Amino acid sequence: MSPKITTELLKQLRQVMKNPKYVQEPVQAYIVPSGDAHQSEYIAPCDCRRAFISGFDGSAGTAIVTEQHAAMWTDGRYFLQAAHQMDNNWTLMKMGLKDTPTQEDWLVTVLPEGSKVGVDPFIIPADQWKRMSKALRSAGHDLVPVKENLIDTIWTECPQRPCKPLITLDLSYTGISWRDKIVALRSKMAERKVMWFVVTALDEVAWLFNLRGSDVEYNPVFFAYAVVGMNTIRLFIDGDRIMDPAVREHLQLDSTLEPEFKIQVLPYGSILSELQAVGAGLSPKEKVWLSDKASYALTEAIPKAYRYLTPYTPICIAKAVKNAAETEGMRRAHIKDAVALCELFNWLEKEVPKGTVTEIIAADKAEEFRSQQKDFVELSFATISSTGPNGAIIHYKPVPETNRTLSVNEIYLLDSGAQYKDGTTDVTRTMHFGTPSAYEKECFTYVLKGHIAVSAAIFPNGTKGHLLDSFARSALWDCGLDYLHGTGHGVGSFLNVHEGPCGISYKTFADEPLEAGMIVSDEPGYYEDGSFGIRIENVVLVIPAETKYNFKNRGSLTFEPLTLVPIQTKMIDVNLLTEKECNWVDEYHQKCREVVGAELERQGRHEALQWLLRETEPLARVQ
Amino acid sequence: MSPKITTELLKQLRQVMKNPKYVQEPVQAYIVPSGDAHQSEYIAPCDCRRAFISGFDGSAGTAIVTEQHAAMWTDGRYFLQAAHQMDNNWTLMKMGLKDTPTQEDWLVTVLPEGSKVGVDPFIIPADQWKRMSKALRSAGHDLVPVKENLIDTIWTECPQRPCKPLITLDLSYTGISWRDKIVALRSKMAERKVMWFVVTALDEVAWLFNLRGSDVEYNPVFFAYAVVGMNTIRLFIDGDRIMDPAVREHLQLDSTLEPEFKIQVLPYGSILSELQAVGAGLSPKEKVWLSDKASYALTEAIPKAYRYLTPYTPICIAKAVKNAAETEGMRRAHIKDAVALCELFNWLEKEVPKGTVTEIIAADKAEEFRSQQKDFVELSFATISSTGPNGAIIHYKPVPETNRTLSVNEIYLLDSGAQYKDGTTDVTRTMHFGTPSAYEKECFTYVLKGHIAVSAAIFPNGTKGHLLDSFARSALWDCGLDYLHGTGHGVGSFLNVHEGPCGISYKTFADEPLEAGMIVSDEPGYYEDGSFGIRIENVVLVIPAETKYNFKNRGSLTFEPLTLVPIQTKMIDVNLLTEKECNWVDEYHQKCREVVGAELERQGRHEALQWLLRETEPLARVQ
Repeated sequence: MSPKITTELLKQLRQVMKNPKYVQEPVQAYIVPSGDAHQSEYIAPCDCRRAFISGFDGSAGTAIVTEQHAAMWTDGRYFLQAAHQMDNNWTLMKMGLKDTPTQEDWLVTVLPEGSKVGVDPFIIPADQWKRMSKALRSAGHDLVPVKENLIDTIWTECPQRPCKPLITLDLSYTGISWRDKIVALRSKMAERKVMWFVVTALDEVAWLFNLRGSDVEYNPVFFAYAVVGMNTIRLFIDGDRIMDPAVREHLQLDSTLEPEFKIQVLPYGSILSELQAVGAGLSPKEKVWLSDKASYALTEAIPKAYRYLTPYTPICIAKAVKNAAETEGMRRAHIKDAVALCELFNWLEKEVPKGTVTEIIAADKAEEFRSQQKDFVELSFATISSTGPNGAIIHYKPVPETNRTLSVNEIYLLDSGAQYKDGTTDVTRTMHFGTPSAYEKECFTYVLKGHIAVSAAIFPNGTKGHLLDSFARSALWDCGLDYLHGTGHGVGSFLNVHEGPCGISYKTFADEPLEAGMIVSDEPGYYEDGSFGIRIENVVLVIPAETKYNFKNRGSLTFEPLTLVPIQTKMIDVNLLTEKECNWVDEYHQKCREVVGAELERQGRHEALQWLLRETEPLARVQ
Repeated sequence: MSPKITTELLKQLRQVMKNPKYVQEPVQAYIVPSGDAHQSEYIAPCDCRRAFISGFDGSAGTAIVTEQHAAMWTDGRYFLQAAHQMDNNWTLMKMGLKDTPTQEDWLVTVLPEGSKVGVDPFIIPADQWKRMSKALRSAGHDLVPVKENLIDTIWTECPQRPCKPLITLDLSYTGISWRDKIVALRSKMAERKVMWFVVTALDEVAWLFNLRGSDVEYNPVFFAYAVVGMNTIRLFIDGDRIMDPAVREHLQLDSTLEPEFKIQVLPYGSILSELQAVGAGLSPKEKVWLSDKASYALTEAIPKAYRYLTPYTPICIAKAVKNAAETEGMRRAHIKDAVALCELFNWLEKEVPKGTVTEIIAADKAEEFRSQQKDFVELSFATISSTGPNGAIIHYKPVPETNRTLSVNEIYLLDSGAQYKDGTTDVTRTMHFGTPSAYEKECFTYVLKGHIAVSAAIFPNGTKGHLLDSFARSALWDCGLDYLHGTGHGVGSFLNVHEGPCGISYKTFADEPLEAGMIVSDEPGYYEDGSFGIRIENVVLVIPAETKYNFKNRGSLTFEPLTLVPIQTKMIDVNLLTEKECNWVDEYHQKCREVVGAELERQGRHEALQWLLRETEPLARVQ
C-alpha cells in the first residue's frame, strides 16, 4: 500500500474553501465526516469523500482541513492502515489515546480568532453539530453549514449515486404489509402526540415499505427518505425504478386508495425543501419526530419548538422485533447458510493439506457455496478469512498483500455471512486442519464457555443486552484473558447485518431491553497479536424461557441459536467444560445434525453430510 | 401512624410565598427538596424541612406547594409510608409509575401563565436546577432562587444546626496527613489546570482534614465547607469546636507554617460571600473545580466560563481507594464487628425459642454487643432487624407498630453495621432458628451462589462495578427469580457507609472503574412479599488477583471479604452448590474460625467461640 498523494487535492480544497461561489464567507476549516446523508454504517462509493481527500478508506474517520493543516481522527482499529494510506500532508489523530486532542480542542488550538468552520449539513448528524457548534462558539469561532459539498466540487471523477432496481417483498417474507406498518407507526405517533415522522435511515425506509435495493454493498437498501403524516405518505426516491410495474403494484401507486395510504413519490433531492414546507406550515403543538442522529440539515428544517427527537425511532424498535414470517425466514436462511459452510469446511479439510488454499480462495469458495443456495442475494459483509497471525486482526479482510495460505499448522478464522431474500446471516467458526496445541485448545474452550454462557443465559423480561456481556468474558477473565470488542449486535431480517437498538456490549448503555423476537449475535473471542485469533459466533433469537418460578410475573427470556454450523470439537478441551456445557455442545450438534443434515440430504450433498455427521459426534466425556 | 395535620402550615407557607420580606416577587410554587446544602444522604433534624411541611419523613421525596396544591414525589420504597404520614392536603406522586407526571410537567399543568417557582438555591443541586429551569422556561415560567429558606421562616421550633465536637484522626488511622492530601489535591488541580477547588460534600471535608464529627446521625461528619487554592486553604466551620486544643494542634492552626498550608478558618455561613469574592477576582483561564452536584448557590458564585464541573471530585476518587492504614483499620473493625455478631447470634439461638425477643430487642442487643468493642463510636445506619414478612420490606426499620417477635418458624434478616474509629462495617445475615423449609433453603442457596459469584469473580483492571452485577443474579435468573435493588455500594473508612464513586449495580453507569484498595459491599438478596426476605452481605476489599495469563499486561482484580461472620449452613441446600462454591464456603468459614476465633479467645468470649466453631464446620458434601 503506498499513500495517496494529496498535495494538489488539498490545494484545490483550500481554494474552494475561499470561493464565494460555494461559501458565503471563506471558511478557515472544513470538516469531512465518514458518513452519508443517512448516517449509514456502509456507504456508497460516491459518499466516500473522506477516503477521496485523504486516501484513508477505513470505515471510521473524520478529516479536518484548515489553511495550514490536514488532520484525520480514527480509532485503534485503523491506526496502522491510516498511517499507510495517508501522505505527509496529513496528521493522524489517534482517538482513545490520552494525549490526542478532540476535534474541537484541536480546532481551537490551530484556528485564527473568529474563524468559520464549514461542514456539509447533510452529512453531520444533528447531535454532533450541537456539540461541536457549542464548543467552537465558546472559543469565539462559528460552525457554519456549507450547502454545496466542497469535496464534490473538486472530485471530478466522483461516481454517480447508485440507483439500482428495487426488490419487492411479499407478506410471506415480511409478515406484515407496508400499510399495516404505516398504521402501527401512526399509532405510535399518536401516542407521542406527533403529527409527522421523518424516516432518514435507509434500512428504516426499506423496512417500512417492504422494499429492498442494492445501492450500498452488503446492505440491501436504496437511497430514499420518507415523511409520514397522519394522512399523507411521501417517499423521496430517484430513478426509473419506481416505474417498475412490480414496484407500482406493490406500493399500489396506480390504485384508488384511501387518501391516507396514497404514496406521493417525490425526487430524492427535494426532501429538504419539502420538509421546510412542512416546518413552515406547522400549527402550535404539531410536533415532528426525527431521530437525534438525523442530519443537521433536515433537523434544522423543523423549527426547534416543533422537533421531537429520540435516539431510537419507533421503526427502529419495531424492526428489531421479528415477526413469525421473518423468524421463519431467518431460520431458513440459516439452514441454507449452514449447508454452504458444511460444503466449505468439508472442501477445506481436503484441500488445505495440499497447501493451495489462500485466505482469498477460501473466502471466494465460501461465497460460491452460498450463491448456490436459493434466494441468495449477496454477502452481508466483507468476508473475514484469516489464518494464523492474521486472525488476531479483528477487522481483517484478506487482500493480495496480506493473503496467507491456510495450513495444517495454524488456526483458521472465518467470519462471514450472506443476504438471502428470506434472511441475513453472520457466523464465525474457528478451525484447525491439523493438530491444535494445548494452549490453542485452552483458549478456544474459554471462548466457547463464554459463548455458551450467553447463549444459555436465562434473564428477566426487560433486561438490557449489556447486562449479559460479562457472562461471555467470565471464563477468560478467570485466567487473565479478555477480548477488546463487544459480544453481540442486532441483526436485520434481509437487512443490515448490524442494526440497533439492541446489542450485547460493555460499551453500549443506550441499548433497548431485549424482547422475544429480537435477533442478536453472540460472538466472544480471544486474540493473540502475531499468533492467532479465535471467535465463535452464532446468530441467536430471543425467545421466552420456561422457569421454575416467575418473580413478579415478569417472565423470562433466553436465546435459541439460529446458526446451525458445527463447532469444531477437535479444538475443545473437554476437561475445562462443566457437564452442563458438554450437554449444551452435544444438544447443539444434535440439532445441527437433524436440521442441517436433512437439508444436505434433500440437496443431495452427501459428502458434506458425511462431514457434518463426523463433526457432530457427541463429546468424549472425561471419566 | 396518623398523618400530620398540615392545613395551618400550608396556609403560612403560602403567605410567605407572597411576603415581600422574603421574596422579591411572589412565587406561585415553592419546591422543598429532601437534601441539605451538601447533598448528604443522611441529614440533620434541622434540615428535615420536607418532613416538617408534609409529615412524610422517608429518606427520599420532593414536596412542591402551589397556591392550590401540595404534591409529594417519592419512589416505590415509600408509597405506603408517605400515604400514611401525609394528610388530605397532599397528593402523592408515585415516581416510576407510568402515569405519574414529572415535577416539571406537573408544574406546567397547574401553574398560571408566567409563574415564578421558588427554591432555596443552597438545597438544590446545580444539575437539577439546570434541568428544571430549562423545562419551566420553555413553558413560560421562571425558576427563581429564594435566599431565605421559606420553610425555616415558618418553622418556629426548628432545631439548631448541630455543632458537636470534632475527633482528630492521627496517621495510624488515616495513613496520610491532611498536608499530604492537600499536596495530592493540588497536583490533581494542576493536572486539570484549575486554580481552586471547592469541597462541598461533608464526607470529603472530613476526609481531607482527617477530622470526624457527629453532626449527622450514623455519618461521622460535621457541617463545613472548604476552598482550596494553589496557595491557600479556607475552612468554613462554626462553633467552639475549632478552639479545642487537639483540633488546633491537628490542623497546626497556631504553628508557623509555610503559607500554602496555613488554614484560614472562617464562619460556615460565609462560604457564599467568600466564594463570590473568589469568583469576582478570577483572571482569564483561572478555573474553579466543583462537583456538578454542588448547590446552585455555590455554583452560581463562580461565573460560568470559570467553572470546571465533574460528577466525581478528585477527593471522592482518592477517598475511595483505601491506603494500607485504612485497610488494616477496616480489617480490625470487621473482626470486632464479627465478635459482636457471634455474641448476638449465640444469644439469639438461646433466647429466640423462648418467644421473648422482638426485632427491636434484637437490634438493641446487637448495638449493645458492638458498643463493647474498642473504638466503637456509633451505628453506621439504622439497624434493619426483620423477621418473617417484615424481611421482605427492603428498607425496613422496626418501630413499635410493626415490631414482630422472632420465632423458630420464621426467617430472620439482620442488616446492621457500626462506626469504629478504625473503620465502618455493614453486614447482613439471614438466619433460621428452627428448621427452614426446602423452598427457603433453595432461595437462600441461589442468593449465596450470587454472593459467591461476585466475591470470587476475577476481572481485568479498569472494569466498572456495574459489569459484575449480573453475576450476582445469574443463579436466581435461572429459575425465574431476581431482586429489585443493586448488588453493592462503596463503603467509607470511618465515614459514610454509602459512598461513591464505585458500586455494583445494573442501574449505575456513571461509576468509576474498580481499583485495588476500593471497598464495596456484596449483597444480593431475594424477597417474597408477605413471607420472608433473604440477603447475604459482606463488605469486600478489591485486591490484585493472580491469574494464569495476563492479557495486554492489564493485571486482574478480585475481592477479599473483610466481613468475617459465618453464613448459616443450615440454610444451604448443598445439592445446589458446585464443588467450587462448596470450597468457597468452607474456606470462608475456616478464615472466620481462625481470625475471629482468635479474637473471641483473646476477649475471653468462650460461649460465642463455641458458637463460631459449630457454625463454621465444613459443609457435608453430597456423595
